Amino acid sequence: MEEKRGLKNRGYTHADVDERRKAVEEFTGTNLESISKYCFDSEKASKNVENMIGATQMPLGFAGPMTINGDHAKGEFLVPLATTEGALIASISRGMSVINGGGGARVKVFQDGMTRAPVFRTNGIDHCKEVIDWIEGNRDLLSSVVGKTTSHGKLTSIESYPAGRNLFTRLTYSTGDAMGMNMATIATEAVCKEIEEHTGAIMVSVSGNMCSDKKAAAINMIKGRGKTVIAEATIPKDIVEKRLHASTGSIVETSIRKNLIGSSLSVTLGANAHAANMIAALYIATGQDPAQVVSGSMTTTMCEDIDGDLYIAVRMPSVEVGTVGGGTRLPSQSEALAMIGCLGDGKASKLAEIVAATVLAGELSTISAQAAGHLGKAHQELGR
Amino acid sequence: MEEKRGLKNRGYTHADVDERRKAVEEFTGTNLESISKYCFDSEKASKNVENMIGATQMPLGFAGPMTINGDHAKGEFLVPLATTEGALIASISRGMSVINGGGGARVKVFQDGMTRAPVFRTNGIDHCKEVIDWIEGNRDLLSSVVGKTTSHGKLTSIESYPAGRNLFTRLTYSTGDAMGMNMATIATEAVCKEIEEHTGAIMVSVSGNMCSDKKAAAINMIKGRGKTVIAEATIPKDIVEKRLHASTGSIVETSIRKNLIGSSLSVTLGANAHAANMIAALYIATGQDPAQVVSGSMTTTMCEDIDGDLYIAVRMPSVEVGTVGGGTRLPSQSEALAMIGCLGDGKASKLAEIVAATVLAGELSTISAQAAGHLGKAHQELGR
Amino acid sequence: MEEKRGLKNRGYTHADVDERRKAVEEFTGTNLESISKYCFDSEKASKNVENMIGATQMPLGFAGPMTINGDHAKGEFLVPLATTEGALIASISRGMSVINGGGGARVKVFQDGMTRAPVFRTNGIDHCKEVIDWIEGNRDLLSSVVGKTTSHGKLTSIESYPAGRNLFTRLTYSTGDAMGMNMATIATEAVCKEIEEHTGAIMVSVSGNMCSDKKAAAINMIKGRGKTVIAEATIPKDIVEKRLHASTGSIVETSIRKNLIGSSLSVTLGANAHAANMIAALYIATGQDPAQVVSGSMTTTMCEDIDGDLYIAVRMPSVEVGTVGGGTRLPSQSEALAMIGCLGDGKASKLAEIVAATVLAGELSTISAQAAGHLGKAHQELGR
Amino acid sequence: MEEKRGLKNRGYTHADVDERRKAVEEFTGTNLESISKYCFDSEKASKNVENMIGATQMPLGFAGPMTINGDHAKGEFLVPLATTEGALIASISRGMSVINGGGGARVKVFQDGMTRAPVFRTNGIDHCKEVIDWIEGNRDLLSSVVGKTTSHGKLTSIESYPAGRNLFTRLTYSTGDAMGMNMATIATEAVCKEIEEHTGAIMVSVSGNMCSDKKAAAINMIKGRGKTVIAEATIPKDIVEKRLHASTGSIVETSIRKNLIGSSLSVTLGANAHAANMIAALYIATGQDPAQVVSGSMTTTMCEDIDGDLYIAVRMPSVEVGTVGGGTRLPSQSEALAMIGCLGDGKASKLAEIVAATVLAGELSTISAQAAGHLGKAHQELGR
Repeated sequence: MEEKRGLKNRGYTHADVDERRKAVEEFTGTNLESISKYCFDSEKASKNVENMIGATQMPLGFAGPMTINGDHAKGEFLVPLATTEGALIASISRGMSVINGGGGARVKVFQDGMTRAPVFRTNGIDHCKEVIDWIEGNRDLLSSVVGKTTSHGKLTSIESYPAGRNLFTRLTYSTGDAMGMNMATIATEAVCKEIEEHTGAIMVSVSGNMCSDKKAAAINMIKGRGKTVIAEATIPKDIVEKRLHASTGSIVETSIRKNLIGSSLSVTLGANAHAANMIAALYIATGQDPAQVVSGSMTTTMCEDIDGDLYIAVRMPSVEVGTVGGGTRLPSQSEALAMIGCLGDGKASKLAEIVAATVLAGELSTISAQAAGHLGKAHQELGR
Repeated sequence: MEEKRGLKNRGYTHADVDERRKAVEEFTGTNLESISKYCFDSEKASKNVENMIGATQMPLGFAGPMTINGDHAKGEFLVPLATTEGALIASISRGMSVINGGGGARVKVFQDGMTRAPVFRTNGIDHCKEVIDWIEGNRDLLSSVVGKTTSHGKLTSIESYPAGRNLFTRLTYSTGDAMGMNMATIATEAVCKEIEEHTGAIMVSVSGNMCSDKKAAAINMIKGRGKTVIAEATIPKDIVEKRLHASTGSIVETSIRKNLIGSSLSVTLGANAHAANMIAALYIATGQDPAQVVSGSMTTTMCEDIDGDLYIAVRMPSVEVGTVGGGTRLPSQSEALAMIGCLGDGKASKLAEIVAATVLAGELSTISAQAAGHLGKAHQELGR
Repeated sequence: MEEKRGLKNRGYTHADVDERRKAVEEFTGTNLESISKYCFDSEKASKNVENMIGATQMPLGFAGPMTINGDHAKGEFLVPLATTEGALIASISRGMSVINGGGGARVKVFQDGMTRAPVFRTNGIDHCKEVIDWIEGNRDLLSSVVGKTTSHGKLTSIESYPAGRNLFTRLTYSTGDAMGMNMATIATEAVCKEIEEHTGAIMVSVSGNMCSDKKAAAINMIKGRGKTVIAEATIPKDIVEKRLHASTGSIVETSIRKNLIGSSLSVTLGANAHAANMIAALYIATGQDPAQVVSGSMTTTMCEDIDGDLYIAVRMPSVEVGTVGGGTRLPSQSEALAMIGCLGDGKASKLAEIVAATVLAGELSTISAQAAGHLGKAHQELGR
Repeated sequence: MEEKRGLKNRGYTHADVDERRKAVEEFTGTNLESISKYCFDSEKASKNVENMIGATQMPLGFAGPMTINGDHAKGEFLVPLATTEGALIASISRGMSVINGGGGARVKVFQDGMTRAPVFRTNGIDHCKEVIDWIEGNRDLLSSVVGKTTSHGKLTSIESYPAGRNLFTRLTYSTGDAMGMNMATIATEAVCKEIEEHTGAIMVSVSGNMCSDKKAAAINMIKGRGKTVIAEATIPKDIVEKRLHASTGSIVETSIRKNLIGSSLSVTLGANAHAANMIAALYIATGQDPAQVVSGSMTTTMCEDIDGDLYIAVRMPSVEVGTVGGGTRLPSQSEALAMIGCLGDGKASKLAEIVAATVLAGELSTISAQAAGHLGKAHQELGR
């Protein structure tokens, strides 16, 4: 009885959390002492979690310093990374150090926009065409509808994809420094209501999977979602050899055979060594949505031999990050953002650039290690 | 000077962590007080992280109880979920409660095997053929080579994919209750050395991206990696209507137009609403590798109307989890595993079943919410 | 000697063809009597073939009549189909007849544009950005450059996709009634020369595979190439049952499990039964490029039960056809175009609509046959 | 009336064809004189076409001679190609001549098997498992069932892919020298009947799109369908420069940026320049199914610089060809097969090797032309 009441407790105070955890302990017959130790204000996490019973503590380390020459991120950074995978931070740090030897990473955000793509049911293709025409003729109206739901978000485009009676529309928003999914969802619902009223189309779902959130979708590879960022670096030949214990040629060869050919043969979205590792560690540390590692994983890593020096670049079509809202409000996450000067307004592009630079470093280090033939050894020593 | 020394400190004691964090604070001009509050033994995390400066604390809640009828997971479970996304746990819990109303989730592991796929350079297709023939003729030798590197892992198959001078081979291992990547990497390096010696092929990389780890790869969708698990449930018509505020028909329609057609048009690997959300929250809570959310995201969710009742199933081709090693050793993660009876040996398949059941619940709830037209509202109330 | 001279003959007269064929007969020791029988003017084929030795004769049949209600194709059509696959035309004809029973096919072209996508090498991401900016600032200049190479083609958009030092640009053209690949290639080469001169970027290839011609590419699924066409039809319940020997329900079920779920699990671009069959037969009959069947194969076929009636639609994102130029000039191909009123100027959209209507009929018939369980039987009787 | 009767004529004699064509001429108001000129026995085409009204004549040329060193194709070949695309044959011939300069193409068939993949509806995952177990326990029975439907085909494997209530099974057959689709379909229907009877599973469709025929499916890229063939060649540096007017370096660069990176960014199955062109021309000439160009298009083309010489290879995972049955029986097609010594029994692997060698030549020539910057020029001179 007691236990049942605890499980059904919906409160957010520390006492509520304790009561609930106690009920869980009883229900499951386990001791949750470590979980009980959290040091943020549970009431302030009320928008981040329900049924809270405590916290997961993940070790946080740093990689760097790394020299980044972005449009937004400029200078030397120590990058916070939350991980449980031994050898990961050491490997990223090695990559950063080598990149510093070549003058640092150059990074640029090429595109920015959060999407939501509702699907409508129409009466058929003639109706589809009418709805499409109506939408195209009423952009201003729809923009003003969006404006009523958000002061930060702006509708930047609507694309239509008819398919039989289905009409998929993909709305893109600028969302300021928020990652922007919720903003986009709420705005899109308002837009859909307007479309329904004026055209008779029926919204079947506010998300019709052409958005596409947290799925590995070619549409995001191609058109981008969130921020499309590229990072690059050039490593002088002698640094490659001395520090990476591999030749430029062998690294380029590994990159081509593994990343480009292997990824093509396995029909992979993107072509990289382990971009998801860096993304996950940095996203978790800074309060991003860890499920959005999925679209980040569609990174393309490219290596070239330029007169003996190593050129390396990563294209990340879909870096969905924010520096306000969501998990960024929590204290350890805020501090991690502060560590890289990315806390609060005006910082989202800077964060995206640091993400790409960190991925670049991790890719360089792992591809080089594979080229040099000692991946397993690194894991054996540091990570088992 | 001081600061520099701190950054270069490589120790694992609490004092080392403090010194390092202090150096980071100085370097970055930030206060990392919340990060400093961790309550696990930093020396015991020595195989999980380098350059540790503290911990990230992520709110942990639970969803459930959920009735699961698996081959390994049987009974009622409270599922630990670490998240910062408001409304997520409430939504999953709703799905679980509805599934309970239909008797719970049925779950089954259909396949199990961890892979690593080195790429070799040969002299050309004749040489490729010789190497393939040598491998096929020397399975026992290669199995014994694997046996020297691990007592838990066994080599279960080797497939060959020649492509010009490149020879990709995909090795599959049973890895007991470990997720198994490191085990597979180390064993594969030993196998490669043997292949190199006997055939003259040159290992270019121990991972040739036909493995494929932490990338969205069709080869894993099709052939599976880690555990291939399916969960299903049947929800009586009246429960659908009363609890989900939607009809079976509208849920099935949403599932088809959104998950199946929308995912096809956006060229997505898998077809689901937000499987990655549940996977990320459960993986982080239980010390799994959060970057492996990527392959989990290739889930296929299917809904059917069976005489008015709702049938829902999720196929997860690639659930890469372990109950020993990696992040499972950390205290809050261990406790979360204990909560679901998944700590230690003999529990990996059970954990995989719970993952799939939890994904099923989250998919049901979100698809129903979208069918009922109130996704944005939920986020607005609980999550902004 | 004689033979060698014949092989090296580069002439286009009937006598040249005969001499060449004779040389081939000698070289290969075969009799090519049937190949020798062609009845078009070999000199008029001089832009269609080199080293001509005769002709391949493929049986030509027709399917229909079919009632088509398009924006361009209106009325009853007998559709010419060149094939060697027994049962194919009978099956398509059956589909057409059934669709006629429901009032015919409704068809619409939603988008039109031929693409070519060169790849440039730049000095890095800063240079990429400069080149992108230059292109965006010089659209008028580039349009006028295009205008010097073609009177029919117009540049309608240029998109940029930077990736490291690579800059991919995708140019879209309206190409009148020509399929337009050559026009687009020549225009793009002129554009590239201009870009090279003004920006210092180096064109590595006029086609960088983001076009993408004759490959199964998601970019064409999503953004379209050539004409994006949708055809749909509604078949009354009683006609479904009487003529297709299957219920609406079973056809819809087959469509979902096979086309939608099966195609997703096999990671297929598009989701259909055999769209390529209809496309190949109609393309060959009418002098289209048969290699462009590839992009046509990315068709999505959708079936729905609407109050017991069967709704079926096909979305064809990439119908690359022309009614002038290329193979359309040859006599049997011209006649086939004339059969459907598609010869010459102003007819390309009409042809695209007929393609989609024909694919619709073939899809309906085959899916119904599979639903009714007699696919093999049809082949056994008509086609072995 | 007259006309109607003609359209409904189902006969196969020359007179029937004439009557039918006359009816078509009347119905459509067109003159089909060229179409009327065919020189094969219409009654012998009775298994290749219905509603025959004549023939499509496509110009047939040859490329070569080409030196091929396969396991089956050995010697010098003149390859018959039916096309209407100017410049294509000239380009392929150039490629062949250059490859001859390096000693010819080396080719090998690595795998062979035709597939058909029915989808069953079961009662759920427990039932799925039972059916899978039954299938695995009754391979011999199922093989004998196959044996009753065909003397040429043998069942070589059955794989199971459960997905909710759906059970997809992929059956692979050796089919002798036939392409084998019909054989596989008929055999699979018999197998399905057996499975249905013993397990209670219901066959929803004999093809569940995991086969997958005439669609661009990753499953075929990865597992192969029909024959998996690789062709390679090495071109000495001086021949590259003199004959291709490009350097080895520039060809390799084009291959990487265009084929590998461009294909990855556009999310293409396979990575090649225009493999479908060669496949289509050779398939049409030799009576293969032109819709199967689709799977052929998933070719991967790879170029490497080996000490200044150019190494080039093509991997074709899915070459679905036969030398008996289907269109190979028609006279011009038979003669084309005879030209390359591929008519009749025991020749299918040889044909597959010639397909791959021809694709290799076409790829080499086009990639080199693009590297040298004169693609449009070739089309302008030869093909407009």
